[in-house]
Parts: sequence; C-alpha cells; structure tokens
Amino acid sequence: MGKVVTFGEIMLRLEPLGYYRFLQSDQYQALYGGGEANVAVSLANFGVDVDYVTKLPAHEIGQGAVNSLRRFGVGTEKIVRGGDRVGIYYLEKGAAQRASKVIYDRSNSAAALAKAEEFDWEAIFDGAEWFHFTGITPALGGELPLICEEACKIAKKKGLKVSCDLNYRKKLWSRDQAKETMTKLAGYIDVCIANEEDAKDVFGISAPATDIEGGKLNHEGYKAVAEQLAGTYGFDMVAITLRTSLSASDNIWAAMLYDGSRHYFSKSYPVHIVDRVGGGDSFGAGLIYSFLNGKETQDTLEFAVAASCLKHTVEGDFNMVSIEEVRKLAEGDGSGRVQR
Amino acid sequence: MGKVVTFGEIMLRLEPLGYYRFLQSDQYQALYGGGEANVAVSLANFGVDVDYVTKLPAHEIGQGAVNSLRRFGVGTEKIVRGGDRVGIYYLEKGAAQRASKVIYDRSNSAAALAKAEEFDWEAIFDGAEWFHFTGITPALGGELPLICEEACKIAKKKGLKVSCDLNYRKKLWSRDQAKETMTKLAGYIDVCIANEEDAKDVFGISAPATDIEGGKLNHEGYKAVAEQLAGTYGFDMVAITLRTSLSASDNIWAAMLYDGSRHYFSKSYPVHIVDRVGGGDSFGAGLIYSFLNGKETQDTLEFAVAASCLKHTVEGDFNMVSIEEVRKLAEGDGSGRVQR
Amino acid sequence: MGKVVTFGEIMLRLEPLGYYRFLQSDQYQALYGGGEANVAVSLANFGVDVDYVTKLPAHEIGQGAVNSLRRFGVGTEKIVRGGDRVGIYYLEKGAAQRASKVIYDRSNSAAALAKAEEFDWEAIFDGAEWFHFTGITPALGGELPLICEEACKIAKKKGLKVSCDLNYRKKLWSRDQAKETMTKLAGYIDVCIANEEDAKDVFGISAPATDIEGGKLNHEGYKAVAEQLAGTYGFDMVAITLRTSLSASDNIWAAMLYDGSRHYFSKSYPVHIVDRVGGGDSFGAGLIYSFLNGKETQDTLEFAVAASCLKHTVEGDFNMVSIEEVRKLAEGDGSGRVQR
Amino acid sequence: MGKVVTFGEIMLRLEPLGYYRFLQSDQYQALYGGGEANVAVSLANFGVDVDYVTKLPAHEIGQGAVNSLRRFGVGTEKIVRGGDRVGIYYLEKGAAQRASKVIYDRSNSAAALAKAEEFDWEAIFDGAEWFHFTGITPALGGELPLICEEACKIAKKKGLKVSCDLNYRKKLWSRDQAKETMTKLAGYIDVCIANEEDAKDVFGISAPATDIEGGKLNHEGYKAVAEQLAGTYGFDMVAITLRTSLSASDNIWAAMLYDGSRHYFSKSYPVHIVDRVGGGDSFGAGLIYSFLNGKETQDTLEFAVAASCLKHTVEGDFNMVSIEEVRKLAEGDGSGRVQR
Amino acid sequence: MGKVVTFGEIMLRLEPLGYYRFLQSDQYQALYGGGEANVAVSLANFGVDVDYVTKLPAHEIGQGAVNSLRRFGVGTEKIVRGGDRVGIYYLEKGAAQRASKVIYDRSNSAAALAKAEEFDWEAIFDGAEWFHFTGITPALGGELPLICEEACKIAKKKGLKVSCDLNYRKKLWSRDQAKETMTKLAGYIDVCIANEEDAKDVFGISAPATDIEGGKLNHEGYKAVAEQLAGTYGFDMVAITLRTSLSASDNIWAAMLYDGSRHYFSKSYPVHIVDRVGGGDSFGAGLIYSFLNGKETQDTLEFAVAASCLKHTVEGDFNMVSIEEVRKLAEGDGSGRVQR
Amino acid sequence: MGKVVTFGEIMLRLEPLGYYRFLQSDQYQALYGGGEANVAVSLANFGVDVDYVTKLPAHEIGQGAVNSLRRFGVGTEKIVRGGDRVGIYYLEKGAAQRASKVIYDRSNSAAALAKAEEFDWEAIFDGAEWFHFTGITPALGGELPLICEEACKIAKKKGLKVSCDLNYRKKLWSRDQAKETMTKLAGYIDVCIANEEDAKDVFGISAPATDIEGGKLNHEGYKAVAEQLAGTYGFDMVAITLRTSLSASDNIWAAMLYDGSRHYFSKSYPVHIVDRVGGGDSFGAGLIYSFLNGKETQDTLEFAVAASCLKHTVEGDFNMVSIEEVRKLAEGDGSGRVQR
Repeated sequence: MGKVVTFGEIMLRLEPLGYYRFLQSDQYQALYGGGEANVAVSLANFGVDVDYVTKLPAHEIGQGAVNSLRRFGVGTEKIVRGGDRVGIYYLEKGAAQRASKVIYDRSNSAAALAKAEEFDWEAIFDGAEWFHFTGITPALGGELPLICEEACKIAKKKGLKVSCDLNYRKKLWSRDQAKETMTKLAGYIDVCIANEEDAKDVFGISAPATDIEGGKLNHEGYKAVAEQLAGTYGFDMVAITLRTSLSASDNIWAAMLYDGSRHYFSKSYPVHIVDRVGGGDSFGAGLIYSFLNGKETQDTLEFAVAASCLKHTVEGDFNMVSIEEVRKLAEGDGSGRVQR
Repeated sequence: MGKVVTFGEIMLRLEPLGYYRFLQSDQYQALYGGGEANVAVSLANFGVDVDYVTKLPAHEIGQGAVNSLRRFGVGTEKIVRGGDRVGIYYLEKGAAQRASKVIYDRSNSAAALAKAEEFDWEAIFDGAEWFHFTGITPALGGELPLICEEACKIAKKKGLKVSCDLNYRKKLWSRDQAKETMTKLAGYIDVCIANEEDAKDVFGISAPATDIEGGKLNHEGYKAVAEQLAGTYGFDMVAITLRTSLSASDNIWAAMLYDGSRHYFSKSYPVHIVDRVGGGDSFGAGLIYSFLNGKETQDTLEFAVAASCLKHTVEGDFNMVSIEEVRKLAEGDGSGRVQR
Repeated sequence: MGKVVTFGEIMLRLEPLGYYRFLQSDQYQALYGGGEANVAVSLANFGVDVDYVTKLPAHEIGQGAVNSLRRFGVGTEKIVRGGDRVGIYYLEKGAAQRASKVIYDRSNSAAALAKAEEFDWEAIFDGAEWFHFTGITPALGGELPLICEEACKIAKKKGLKVSCDLNYRKKLWSRDQAKETMTKLAGYIDVCIANEEDAKDVFGISAPATDIEGGKLNHEGYKAVAEQLAGTYGFDMVAITLRTSLSASDNIWAAMLYDGSRHYFSKSYPVHIVDRVGGGDSFGAGLIYSFLNGKETQDTLEFAVAASCLKHTVEGDFNMVSIEEVRKLAEGDGSGRVQR
Repeated sequence: MGKVVTFGEIMLRLEPLGYYRFLQSDQYQALYGGGEANVAVSLANFGVDVDYVTKLPAHEIGQGAVNSLRRFGVGTEKIVRGGDRVGIYYLEKGAAQRASKVIYDRSNSAAALAKAEEFDWEAIFDGAEWFHFTGITPALGGELPLICEEACKIAKKKGLKVSCDLNYRKKLWSRDQAKETMTKLAGYIDVCIANEEDAKDVFGISAPATDIEGGKLNHEGYKAVAEQLAGTYGFDMVAITLRTSLSASDNIWAAMLYDGSRHYFSKSYPVHIVDRVGGGDSFGAGLIYSFLNGKETQDTLEFAVAASCLKHTVEGDFNMVSIEEVRKLAEGDGSGRVQR
Repeated sequence: MGKVVTFGEIMLRLEPLGYYRFLQSDQYQALYGGGEANVAVSLANFGVDVDYVTKLPAHEIGQGAVNSLRRFGVGTEKIVRGGDRVGIYYLEKGAAQRASKVIYDRSNSAAALAKAEEFDWEAIFDGAEWFHFTGITPALGGELPLICEEACKIAKKKGLKVSCDLNYRKKLWSRDQAKETMTKLAGYIDVCIANEEDAKDVFGISAPATDIEGGKLNHEGYKAVAEQLAGTYGFDMVAITLRTSLSASDNIWAAMLYDGSRHYFSKSYPVHIVDRVGGGDSFGAGLIYSFLNGKETQDTLEFAVAASCLKHTVEGDFNMVSIEEVRKLAEGDGSGRVQR
Repeated sequence: MGKVVTFGEIMLRLEPLGYYRFLQSDQYQALYGGGEANVAVSLANFGVDVDYVTKLPAHEIGQGAVNSLRRFGVGTEKIVRGGDRVGIYYLEKGAAQRASKVIYDRSNSAAALAKAEEFDWEAIFDGAEWFHFTGITPALGGELPLICEEACKIAKKKGLKVSCDLNYRKKLWSRDQAKETMTKLAGYIDVCIANEEDAKDVFGISAPATDIEGGKLNHEGYKAVAEQLAGTYGFDMVAITLRTSLSASDNIWAAMLYDGSRHYFSKSYPVHIVDRVGGGDSFGAGLIYSFLNGKETQDTLEFAVAASCLKHTVEGDFNMVSIEEVRKLAEGDGSGRVQR
C-alpha cells in the first residue's frame, strides 16, 4: 500500500478550558489543527503511511505544529519551512443551545503566503498513492489555487487518486470565487466529499426542500445532489455527511456515498458531543483508509461514519481512534462498556 | 435611555473544579456573584448603562468583587467601601440525580452590616430610569429592610420603575419575616418576578395542586397566582419562571408574564445544564432590557426566557451572552451549529 | 453495631484529565481505588466503623494509599506495610460510543505478593461483625486464595457475616481457575453479590437469552440465576446488579435481591455518568449498611441501588455520598434541585 | 510515650496559585491550617500520637478541615462539631521585595464562638503527656481565654507538660489585652516559645537595640529577653526563633533555647523560601518531639531548627517532613542531593 | 489633578505555564500587555485617572483586551473599535542562564492598521494633563508615525506634558527609520525615558565603554548620554533605567534622572525575577505619577525605581502594586516580612 | 555525518506539580525519560539523526513513550514492541535543603525483560556512526548485560564509536555486580563518561580526599581518576562531570575531559535549578554532538558543559535547547537578557 499525501494549512487552535466563554478565561488550551492535517493524523492512527505538506515558520510556534504531527507518526519531511506566522483559530466550545464559536486569525500565515516554486510535487508524490486536500486550501488565496492545481495535475500524472473535501468557508472567499476555482480543480478529483451545505455554496447545487437550521435532512434531496455533482464534474465517488444539529451538545450523524450508480446510506448515530471540530475530516480519513484497503462500498461508508462518530467524543481536531475501535462501533457495539 | 441601578450583596463564590465534591477538592474556582450583581452584568452585556450599589471592604477581596463587575462594564462608582468581610457562598455542582449544594457563609458581611446613612439615594438615582433589587437584600437583616424601603421611596419619587425578584431564602429569614417586610415594599414595586415557590413562601399565595418535587408544573395554577399577586399588591407586571427539574443535569425552562389583563406563556426549552446558578437573575435582566426598549409583551417574555435558557450553558453567576445570541435563540435557532 | 472489615488490594489510579485520551495527555489525576477499599470508604461515609486490610509499601506511594483511606475515616491500623510497589491502573474516561479503557499494571504489587503469615485474622476480626471481600482478591494469585480462605474460616468461626462480590476479571485468572477457587470459598459466604456476567464467568451459571452487548436484560433469567446460585452454593442472599449500557455516557441502573424465597427488584434509574468506576462497590456498601441496620429487604435493595446510582455522579472510585442523600433519592427525589 | 494534645483554631487557607496577586487570580488553592493544627500534623509526621481539639461546623467545609488532619494521622475524635463557619485566611505569596500578604476573615467562626462547657478536658487529656496551644487561641476572644485557662489547669493537674507559642496577632487583640490574659496563663506554661517580636508585644520585654525591619538580630539582646521571660513568669524553658528577613524569598533562620541556666544557639540556615507560613509551628513541633524523646538540649534545639528550616521548602501550613529528613539536615547534610 | 492619556498597541500575550519551553507546552496563559497599556494600568493602580487609546477589533479577543484594562480601572471609552486582529506576542520565561524568549506576531493588527482620521485628539485630550506614548507606537508603521505626531501636536497645544519611552524594537524598524521619525517627534517631548541601549539605537548617542552583555554599566557614560539627549533634542527631563543582567533570574535594577542641571542616581536593587516584562513601563508610570504629584526629583526617581523593582515580582505585563507598597520599599523596607 | 544509536530503558516519570510533596498531591505531571532516551532527544534537538532502541509494550502507555520521542524527531522504528509494563519513576522536586526524591517502580518492565533475540544489531547499526548506552541498561539484569555486550561487539565490528555513561544505581545492582559486568563491557568503550562518584562505585577508583556530601571537589583527584580509568580500561576519552551541591536549588556545574594525554577543565557555572534530572545525559549528548562534528577538545568540553548547564533550567528529563543557545552560553553570554 502506497503513501497518502495531504496538503493544506495547519493552525494553532486556542481554546478556553472547559465551557468557559472567551471573555471569562485567561488560559487557553493550545493545540494544532486544520482540515488536511486532521486527515493525516487520523490516517496515521490507522497505521497508514502519510505525509503532510504545508509551509510553516522556522520558529517554535511553527515547530510546535510540526511536532504535533510527528508525535502521532505523520511524515513532516516535506513541510517547507519559512515565513513569519502560524495561522490561528480561536475556539469557544458551545453547549446545548449555545453554539460553538470560531474566530479566525489566519491571514498572512506562512501557508497562505506560500509560493508555487517552494513545492516540488514530483518529489513529494514519490511513492504516493493518494492525494487529499480540501476547499480551504485554495480559498487561502495568493498562489494557493495555482499550487493546488499544479499538485493535482502532477498527482494525476503520477497515477494517484485525488480526494477533496469541499469545506466551504464564507470568511475566506465568496461563492463565486469558490465556484470558479473549484470548477477548475474538479476535473482532477476522483472522490468528492461534502457536507449538507457545501454543494450549494460551492457549486450552486442544492437539495430541494432541506431545512438545515431546523435540523431536518432530506435523503432524497441528497441523492439528487450527489448525482448532479458526479454528473456535472465527473467525480467517481461523492460522499455527503449528514449532520442533524439538535443542539451544540447533541447531533445525529450519518452519511451517504454515491458511486456513480448506487446510493449507500450509513447507519445513523446519535452523538453526544465532546468536540465536534474535525468531524468531517475524520470521515474523509475513514473513507481514504477504506478505499486504500479495498473495502466494499457499504463497509467503506460505515467505517468512515463510525470513525467520525467517535471523533465527536475526542478532544481536539485530531481523531485519536484505532481501527479496532472504529470496527467495533461499525459492527454495532456502541454500548460504551468499560474495556478492561 | 436612562441608567439602571441594582442594589444588593455580591459574594465570593468558591466552587470545586468540575464535578468534584467539596470533600474531594483542594482547589476552588473563585468567582463573584449575587442576584442583583448578576442582573447588572447581564444588562451591561446587553449594552445597558448600569450601576451596581452595595458595600464592600477596601481590601483586595472586596476589590476583587469590584473588578469582577467593572471588567464587564458595570458602573461601580457608587459602591460604598468599608467593613471587614465579603460574604461567601460555597457551591458544589451537581450532576444527574445528585443535587447541587450551596453552603452560605454570608453573615456579618460588609453589605449585611451596611448603614442607611451610607447610601445617598438621591445621588445614586441621578439619571436613572430603573431600579432593581431582590428579596435577598432585605432578608440580610440589620438596616437592609430600611435601606431598601428608602431606596424604593426615592426611586418612585424620581420616577423610576422598580422591579423586584422575590427570591425567598429560607436560611436568611422566616416566611413571616419575609411577608411582613415584603408587604411593606410591595407598594413601590412595578414589576414583580418570582419562581414557582416564591409567591407561596413570601406571600402565602400558592398555585393549587402543583407538585414541585415531582417536577410537574400547573399552568392554570400559575395564572391564578399571578392574578392574586397583581391584585393584592398592585404590581403592574408579574413574571413567573417555570422550572421543571428532571435532574441536576437536565431541566425544562419556561416562564409566564401577566400584565394585569393577559397571561403570556413563553416557549419551553429543554436545558442541558452547564451552570444553573443565576438563571432567574438572567431572566430578570432580560425582562428589564426588553421593557427599557419598549418591546411587545410576548417578545419581552421570549427574550427573557431565551436569555436565561442560555445562562444555563454559561459557567459562573453572570450571564455572558449578547443580544444577538439571545435573539437568535428567541427566533427559533437553538441548533447550536458552529458560528465561524 | 460492630465493625466491618474489608480485605483486598488498593491501587493507584492514573487518569488523564477530563475526556483526554491517554495519548493526548501529560497530566494524570492520581487517586486511589480498589473494590474492597471502595466499599470501606463508602461505609465510612455512612458512619460505619470500618477497617481496611491489605499490604502496602512503606514508601510515599504506599502511604498515599493509606492517607486516601484515613482521610475519609477508614481504619488503616491493620494494614501490613512492606513490599515494593503499589499496583496501578490507568483509566481513560469514555464518552458516548467511545468506551472507557483500563490498562492494568498490578502484577507484583505488595498486596499480590503478600504472605499468609502477615495477617493475624483473629486480631483483625476482633470486635467485627461483617467481613467483605471480592473475587479480585483471590484472583491476584500467590498466597491470596489461601489467605482469603483463612480469613473466611476465622470470620465464620467468630460469627461474622461474610459477603463477597464475585467481580470476575478475565485478565487476572481464567474461568476455570475462578470456578475452582470461588467454589472453595463459596461455603463461607452469606451474601453473594454479582453483576450480570459474573455468575456465568465464575460459576458457569447463565441467564438464558440475555444479550449484554445489546444492552437488554432479562429479569426472568436473573431470577433463575439467583436461585441457582443460592441453591448450589448455599448463599443466604444473592444480589445482582443490572446495568443496561446505552453508551459510555448513559446507562440504566437497577438491581435484584433474592433472599432464598423471594425476588425483589429495585427501581430503575437512568444514570448520566460522571464516573462509573466503583458502581458495583457502592452497591455492595449500600447492602452491607442496610443489613447491618436491619432494614427491610426491599428497602435494603432500594438503598443500595440509590447509593450506587449516585456513585455514577461522583468522580473517583470512592462513593462520596451521605445517608441523607441516598435516602432522599431512594424515596423518590431525583430532581436534582439545588440544596441551599 | 504519651499522647500530645493541641488546641486552637484551624482555618481554610485560600491562596492564589503560584505568585499571582489576589487581584489577578480566579482560582484559589484551598488548604487548611492554623498554629496548633500545624503542630499536630508535624508531630503526627514524626510518628507521635497526637489529638487536635477545636470546634468545627458539621457541614462539608468543617469536615474538610477534619479530613485534612486525619489524612495525616492526627486524632480528630475530640473535635467538637457545631457552629456555622470555618474561619478563613487569604494568603498571597510574596517574592523578593514584595511581602506575602494575609487577609483574615476569621471572626465568628465556630472555634471563636465555642463555649467552655463544650470541652471535657478531663476526658480530652486522658492518656496525654503534653499540651500545646498558642497565644492566638485566647486572642480569639469570647470564652476562649477562659477555656484556655481551664485546659491549662486540668493539664497541670493531670501532670502534663504545657507549651505555648506566644504568637502575637495585632489584628486579634491589643498588647494590653494580650498581656493581661497571657500573664494569667503564664503560670501554667512550662515551655514558652516566641519569635523575635512576641516577647515585646505580649509582655513588653524587648531586646535592646534590635532592628527587625532591617533584618539584624542581636544575640546578646535575646539572651536577656529569655532570661527575663523565664525569671518573671517562671517558664522552665524559653525558646526564641531568630528570623532575618533578607527578602520575601530569602531568610536566615536560627533559634535559641534557654533552660534556666544556659543559652543554646542553633546553627543558622539560609532559607530559600517555598512557603514560610507555619515556620514557627514546625519549630514548636520539633521542640516537643525532642523533649518527649528526652534529647539533649542542644540536639533538641538543632532538631527543631532543622525541622523548621525544612518547613520553608514545603507548600502549605503543615510541615510534611520525616524524622530522617530532619536528622540528616541537623547532622549537616543540606546539600540537597537527589535521594534515589 | 488632570487625566493621563496613553496611546499605543495592546497585544495578547501567550505564555507557557511555569518554566515550560514553547515546545513542551500545550497550554498558554493568555494575558494582555503592551508598553502604554502597562503604564495605564500601573497609573490606575496608583489611583490616577487614566485613559488608554488604541484600536481593537470588535470581536471577543479585542473585547478581552478592553476588559483586561477596565477591570483595573483604566478608561477605555476612547478606544476605537474595528479591524480584524489583536497583535500577539508569545513569551517563554527564562531561568538562570536561559534567556526569556519573545516571538512577535503583531503585523497587521487593528492598531498597526489604524487610520489618522479615526482619532479625535482634541476630544481625547479633553481634561487631560499628561500624554504618554513609546517608540513602539510609531515603529508599527503605516499611519502611526503621523498619528503620533498629530497627537503630540494637539497635546502640546492643549498644554499637556508629553513623555515618551524610546523603547527601540529592532524587529519593527531600522535604526535609521527610528532616528528619522523620533527626531521629528522629539520636539514635542518633555520627558524622555530610555534604557541603557535605546539612546544609541534611536539617536546614535552612546555611553562610552559600556558593556551591556557583560552586565557592566558605566555611570559616568550615562550622565553624558543624558546630557547629550537633553542638549540635542530639548527634553526637560531624561530618565535612564540601568539594568545589570546577572542571569534571567537575577538582575540589578536602578535608574538615573537628569533634569537639565543635575544628575540623580537611585538606589540599586537586586531583583529576583518573577516576571521582568513591563519593568521599564512600570518605571515610566512611577515617574509620571510622581511628576503629577509634584514630588522632589530624588523622591520621584526613587518612587519610580521602587515601583519597577516590585514589578519584577509580579506576573504579567501589568504592575499590580499600590502606592503604599512602593513607598514602603522606597523608604527602605525590602525585608518582605509577611503583612498580616 | 552518520546516525547515532542509543539503547536503554525509557520510563514514565510521575511528578507532583510544582514543589508539592508526594503526600500532598493528587495530580502528577506525566512525562517520559531515561538516560539514553534523554541523550537521544538532546541530539535530535541539535539536528543529529538519532535512533533510540528499547522494548516497549504495545498499549497506550508504551505508545506514549514512543510518541514522546518522535515528537522531538528521534527515530523510533527500531523499538521492539511487546511486554506488559512501562517502568515508572516517581519524582518529587526538592528545594533548598530538601532533597529531590526518586522512588523507582521499574522491575519487570518490558525493557528489563527483553530478550537478546529481539534485537537485530546488524540492522540497527546500519548507517550508524556512534553507539551510546549507560550503566543503567546492563544493571536492569536479565539478558540486558548480554544484550549490551552483543550490541557493543557488533558496534565495534561495524566501526562505530561507543560511549558509555557509567551512571551507577545502587538500587539496581551491587558494586560487585557493576564492576564485573562493566569490566567486560569496558573493552568496547571509546568514550567513558562518569560523575564524581561513578568511578568509585563501579570500578573502585576514587579521587583521594573528596568530600561529596560537603560539596567540595578536588580537581587534582579527578585528574588521577581519569588517568586510572583510561589506563586500566583503555578508554580513549574520559569525561567527568563535577557537581557541587550547595542545595537542591543551587549547584555549581563543571566538567573535565581527559584525552589520554591532557586534562581539560571547563568553565564552572552556578546553576539555579529548575530541574536537574537528566543533567548528566545532556552533558553526554553535548560531547557526542561535538565529537561527531570534529570540534577541538576544549570546545567539545565547553559545549557539553554549557548544554548541560542549560538543562538545569528546563523541566523534564529532556534537554530542550538548540545549538545556538548552547553556543551563546559557551561563548560567555549567560546574562539571560530577553531574546526578542
């Protein structure tokens, strides 16, 4: 089995302890996270050989990001070092009717200012089998759309599978910008991952009669969305995560997968949330792991959903769960009995 | 819009971390809180100009109380400084079937020993539009009943609206004492706020066939209570908070408001509790904010209930929420989706 | 009322803070716990005179275990001091679908290597009325089965009641070893306590058609199990705790008690879990307390179940609750209203 | 060797973490301490059988004080339970030129309001050999001077040695009050312990030409003070601790002992301070331990000074050191080499 | 006495706990600080009426900065709200031979991108008597040099005294840039404050034969520097802080003041460091306080040096000391004896 | 430059926070450390390619040890996984006259029970240039002496330099056992590292007239020791660290190096201690780094001493310092001035 490469921005995540609000706290938990880094750690925790690519400053805050990855076995040798700052996101954990809150301070990070010539994709993809990125990376602007395109081109040339999680972020770019750029990149993408809103935000494709705020999801609608995505952009696979937000503490979590001919729906999990950040990323990592291991489609989907269900019980961006734990849940044991 | 003035006692709140019981912990979270202070901070968080009046020692523990208020924008210039001690309440957070526990150590505090001549109400109410206090303040004894009466008198003379949250505390005074004193003060009060039990404890007015311990509430009964309160004591408005205690972790929260002619009932919220102390105070603050801003009665009630629903998700006595957060919930979005 | 003596191993319990996984944490909560020590502390919290017997090293880690007991009033004078190490268990708290995880590092502890001649049971049982141990103690191997037998023999000789919680631990011994040893000890035991699986694991007696993983329990089956246990081994009383694991965060908790003629079933409590370790031990302590105080059988059971229901809301192995708190719940008030 | 009994008030000690000032901190370390309790714990740590007598409320804050003592092996059976509050002292740790700061909130504590009839000194002193108290106890006022006198009378009657640490606290009583009361008690005292200022504050006996603020001590002067104390009040032994305050972080620590005929001076230790509260109490405990064990006078003094030197390196009021550690230092090894 | 106004940038200060290095820590203390904000808080702690002016984002991280100031009584009404980010500095505390380390992430902060038209200096200086800023503020670039010049102009026009701490930061601008800008501003400055290196870095004026790295200071040289500064730029007063760095843990601290005719040298303090950040700012605040209160020149200097000596014992950027504490030290009592 | 390989045992290090004693603390800092692991991390921090070899259990506590190494860039691919337990050492930090205390619980660890056939030294040393181990490794007993010998043999065969830090631990083996085993291994060792006592404990070679407890060191004596060591056992280089223990808080630190012909003495550093564990290991790492980089002998020694001087200011076993920081100190700048 070949290596996986993921590319994006890893940020410093600053978070008041427990359920304190920003204005009540003078201590922050200081972890690191970011879509593609989260996928990389999750894969490493499944025993996959994975390299994470980004640009990070040489100073200790940048080094902290590197160490947060290699601690869990992610390859960091391809990370370009330089620039001045590590992007930051402040996170306040919600509870019940009070939503979690994110304040971004990521402009002008080393990653956002990275230059195309700093990445030797031919070398980076040496020995690799899969390339993953998210829509956040081109949304960073500067040369990033160009770098993503170049990475995709060389990935395809070298025979890698390419997956992308659309991950629309309205604070980073407009829907028009997203559509223009992502349309260019879509042709290289084999596996497209999205949540309930991404398809509409990025490609203007929406599930009829879905009421996200109200927490209701419409399965038939998502089948149509998946078909349109696959039909229009030529994705081999389209995966859509289906989150019903009952409150900041309780969600229902499921997903569907469309393989060009059939729609698969996963089991649905009630999730009592410890930390939901990185939920989608852990789903992506579950998918990639399963595809790499040649699982059946329904099993692939169930593994990915079980993995990401467990993510909601883990603090931090990274999904710290093992294959065995995911399998146990996917096979039906969510009883949480003490493992002695 | 004029200023709000609140008057009462602010205490040091000492609380074991997390869910530790008193006897397991050798570290305390040290925050400050008290009914009228909680209302003041909540109003300041809504952008209202508010002064808090009390008496506090000049030493650092007293200064800590002052700083806890001015940090959030509450005016503290009218606080009388002097005396020896800050009242304390020890709080142990309950969970599920285990109730939260409060141990008071508030006797002989600077506030409880305050003298009438220390407060120049004419000056304090200068530029003010609203005066709020709770039944706890006269219950402190000493000259406090007298001081409250004097404050009310001058408030009315200067045209302020007066609100009072009955807040009966059986450790501070008997029902007879409460009735005698509160009956004297009732004539000055425009808006009376109570919880399910206060009307009975203070004025002997009870909702027929209500079974508080069993967690059942009787809407018709509360309508009768509100009418009797308004009828007997001449309140313009009577607001009653309706808490159904399923367990220390889960409550249902709602309220009713009677304006002398109609009864309004709010939406009912299931609350998964982070910290329920100050729930009633945050409701009072929501009411006052809405009245000051001339909202419709039903909207007034819904704002107050939504504000206090959110309080249950916030650590500490103070309700750290913004107008926007309250509005979003009052308008129906309690989905808790991450705000990025 | 005479003294209770409990005998077993107390371990250092090392646990990441909050919901952190082992690999995310570089700080451990360091508490102490172990089946019989948990029973002892629980009894001491009910005001019972209780001695705990074990062997612990003379160094500070051993002394820490002693202090953790005498802090709550357990008699520690009979503890043998010597040996090199305190057994350890690492505990990772689960949430929702993610199970709690225990890693044992208890081999070669001072307790496991204790010698029969180090315990003078005649003296230890002086003035005692009840002796309690669990199946974990003989499972430690070495001379422990022998020591347990000797303790039981002398206990019976001196007229003590003997209770034993089967507590099968598959990492400590095989089912065959357990059956052989426990069969020898069974003759001395008056009160046998077990959970849903112990009877099967230890004595090969199973409730027909019970599906533990699926969380379903079969009351009729357990009646049969209790009868067989009592019939085969001559126990006066058989108590079985009935846990339905909905998830690591939510269980349903109940128990049954068979007195040789009738089966009693307790109320059933939904438990939202703070810490479920020691749940069974707190049930045992509730039983012993009630038996010592001559309660009616149904009341005995209800007290024990209410006590252990509350344990799930308390951090650590030890059940830190008072008789009053247990009674209040047993009598039906689980509303969790703040106790001021 | 008989038992030691100490009598006084134990308080809740609330202290910001690390070197934070009161106004910077919203978390307090919550320990317990008080002159005579500190002596009791220190003696228990030396293996001495010791009972601590006081009055404490029945609630959890009072129970916490009890547990803090029995955790370390102090006998707490003679503690009277009742009253409402545990006295508090707030402690802010100083550093370098910034002094440590103490704010007392101890008025009206259960101990301060204790009644003479609540203490059965005949029973308390049963089997005891030594009685220790400090000048703080009568300074609490109310019936405490009377209770101390009664305790002393019965102690002498039953043949106990009586020691008293003068411990003048200007916030508790005036010099005149102190002199009047302590003069009455002096006749019962065998061993009088004082620091550099107490003799002057309490009895008006001063060392000529001592400049405490400047940190200079005058050995000849103290010899004179000791002689006067012994001469005037008939003490068998007078011990004076000699502290040179270079800064809040660094002191020089020594003591002298006068046995009615000779003056003994101890070695002098530079102490780099972790926590200096309880320094004098740990000295008293060292003296008592040595007297009980019949040590030579110089050895007695050196043991007491070495014990209290080590106290300065231990957090909290209690001196957590062993006989072996004290001996090692008294014999000259203060090299602090790692003990493996 | 009129108001003081200070103007500059306040940053979020992120610092590993205790002595942990950046790469060892996943928790940060999150305080706020910045030269002029530090001066403002110090003055507020001395009871001075002081306004702090800057630009801060409207979000919670910006609000946190505002709250950190008003908590201690600094006026924040003149702060412009807007922009996206709060500048950050990461601080790692040194010890002994290991130096403290600062990593700046302050580019593009709301303050650095502030526009001249956002500040109405006429209104800001209403009722003010003194204006203080540091060389860091114009060094932020953009319109800041211009804004500083305008502020100075209007300050002088309205009769305020103007003080400036040169505070050269080589990461913000070159020596040439500094000289050009500061030369323009010098004409408005009455009181110039500098450390041992600033005069050389900013104005190219150096003390002959000073060896900073070696920790030696040359008093005669500094007299010459002060005279040149005053002579060339027309300052009424020149104050120079004199720090001898023995190690990251121990410094010697003193200062000189030149009033155009005489040089005053302060006492010299050995400082055992808790936190040395903000040492210079606390000196500046001490000077301003003394000038405003019309103290003698030597007393002014001694007050400022004692205040800043104490700052080294206080965690955080802000000097949390009272006038009484400073006076006590300035008058010679640095013994650190416990204040009860 | 080739790779370095180190081999030994890494333990879980459990330590009360701050200066709390074991019996006062219910929270432990949980780090990892061990002689050869410490050397490996230190080398990785200097940018050296280094592999650490040991045996660790597959469970999370074992994985935690692996992660603690790869986080800082140490190669962990050669670590054998298996066995049941990770060795533990409990560490209590001393202060002033109170010594640090270590309690070992390392028997029967996976490393101590490792088997010779589990290590393929030919493969492990592939591409390596240097092999380092300490006397602790053979002292673990079992097959470890044999494994060390085999490792040394193959290392020499493949042309690696071999260094060994004698590191005598009296709790692991007797002096006789140490001498017998280490004499066998000595023939393979090129660079022998020892502290002031090791030569005597292991080989019976002592410096005449050295008084370790008193803190005095005898330079002439150590020259003689080094010569004897080199002469008797054929070491190319002998390095001796020279620690003068003034107290647990303050040491003087220096070293000597003997190259067979000349003795080199380093500068002597007063060290104010944050954490002295791993001081010797950081010296060894400094030596190896310098030898690998072909430094002059005096420079080699100064680098190693400066590196280990800095270690004393760093929490944990690992020396978290960079080449630049070491060089700066070795070149004479220990002023600790803030690095901005």
